[in-house]
Amino acid sequence: MKKIIVVKSAGFCFGVRRAIEMAFAAAQENTKSVYTLGPIIHNPQTVQKLYEAGVKVITQEDIPNITNGIVIIRSHGIPPQLEKQLYKYNITILDATCPFVKKAQNYAQELNKEGYQIILIGEPNHPEVKSILGYAGEKAIVVHSKVDLDYTKLQNRIGIVVQTTQSFQNFIEIINNILGYIHELKIYNTICNATATRQDETLEVAKKVDLMIVVGGYNSANTTRLTELCRKQGNATYHIETADEIKLEWFDDDINIIRITAGASTPEWIINNVKKRIEEILL
Amino acid sequence: MKKIIVVKSAGFCFGVRRAIEMAFAAAQENTKSVYTLGPIIHNPQTVQKLYEAGVKVITQEDIPNITNGIVIIRSHGIPPQLEKQLYKYNITILDATCPFVKKAQNYAQELNKEGYQIILIGEPNHPEVKSILGYAGEKAIVVHSKVDLDYTKLQNRIGIVVQTTQSFQNFIEIINNILGYIHELKIYNTICNATATRQDETLEVAKKVDLMIVVGGYNSANTTRLTELCRKQGNATYHIETADEIKLEWFDDDINIIRITAGASTPEWIINNVKKRIEEILL
Repeated sequence: MKKIIVVKSAGFCFGVRRAIEMAFAAAQENTKSVYTLGPIIHNPQTVQKLYEAGVKVITQEDIPNITNGIVIIRSHGIPPQLEKQLYKYNITILDATCPFVKKAQNYAQELNKEGYQIILIGEPNHPEVKSILGYAGEKAIVVHSKVDLDYTKLQNRIGIVVQTTQSFQNFIEIINNILGYIHELKIYNTICNATATRQDETLEVAKKVDLMIVVGGYNSANTTRLTELCRKQGNATYHIETADEIKLEWFDDDINIIRITAGASTPEWIINNVKKRIEEILL
Repeated sequence: MKKIIVVKSAGFCFGVRRAIEMAFAAAQENTKSVYTLGPIIHNPQTVQKLYEAGVKVITQEDIPNITNGIVIIRSHGIPPQLEKQLYKYNITILDATCPFVKKAQNYAQELNKEGYQIILIGEPNHPEVKSILGYAGEKAIVVHSKVDLDYTKLQNRIGIVVQTTQSFQNFIEIINNILGYIHELKIYNTICNATATRQDETLEVAKKVDLMIVVGGYNSANTTRLTELCRKQGNATYHIETADEIKLEWFDDDINIIRITAGASTPEWIINNVKKRIEEILL
């Protein structure tokens, strides 16, 4: 008896769902042109659906050319310096920054005001990290792993905020490595529970599984991390974007228990398609 | 060839040396009676020497009976509530609180003012911990080990200070266990380097040794911890207060490398006596 089950917490988190709903709603009102500054989420299929509904992706360079349009700030947020630029033009700004990311931005701003040197734990090139970093002051450092730490650059009073999708383990490891070098540490744990819950549930499930399918954009950091975590458990794990990528040869006779998980930016319809496709193969 | 070496950082730390010098100096001036509120350090032999110089140990209950004397606050400090009581009487107060303990008291006061619930990492019955706790507000909790943590009692904003003689490992373990339960954590690492250095040097030396002698008062927390750490390394370890306790049978023929270490409250003359006594046995 083959079993295919989707992990309960797979897919859209609160912030992503909210941003996408805001984008579709703005497009439906249909009075002005609607743009998102960068793809609204790390999921090309959703970006395509939005495009079909009239929402176009623009870059920072396109801003001066927009007249009388709506620009949506995506869930990752943007640095305050860029937000100020937007206000210079005749643009309606729709801020879909995830409320949890907004909190991390506020904490970074507060810590900076209090004179702390900020260590932002996260991926240096991730748009969320860049948006928080904009609030963190000039002394701020982004650290993704304990091996990135340059202790000679640490001041004596450190403030910590963390990319909402980081793993708790990494967060703790970096703090442990800093603690011995400094005197004062003020930490805001800005990891989002949705990410932690999804990772925990996926890992729990991954213990009793023959095959793990992780669904999500290849450019989605949290999807990639889910894949890494499953592989660390020693599971056969495939990261796919859509059902089309599923290969027959993955499903040997001894593969009985199959679980599907998905990153925060993966829409339900893609997850459902993946499930259906696997059911077709196994029938 | 038998080798006996005293660990470099064994014995008095800065705060203890300072407090004892202040006590002897006050006794020498000889104008008023001199008292210490509790034994000045956790070393009965030093307390005896001070007694011979005219410095008497009193308890809190004795305070109302002192007229026109000098009361020395020992290096561990006292709670502010008790300090206020002292000021009610005609007493000269000589504050020998270790400057590092004073810092921990100040941080506890500051964190309490900022609305944090304070977790004080340390031994609940240690006078230093009691002195810091007096500044930490009513919500404060003392935690000595991660197993003491009652997560249901944790508020969402926690401030941490730590008994100056705690091990860094214990400090980190407790923080790691708290981090997952709360949102905001402000940490002051108030561990004194002298303790850490003494522990590190002792442990480093303990790797290449046949016998470890730890010298210090049985009521000295940091001496007891040194003993524990050496035993964890698997070494033959004896905790003694004075040279008189050394036993011949500890020195079998296969005991060649002997190291002596001592807690922060152990005076140099006691360490030297221990060394001399072992040399006599081995000659």
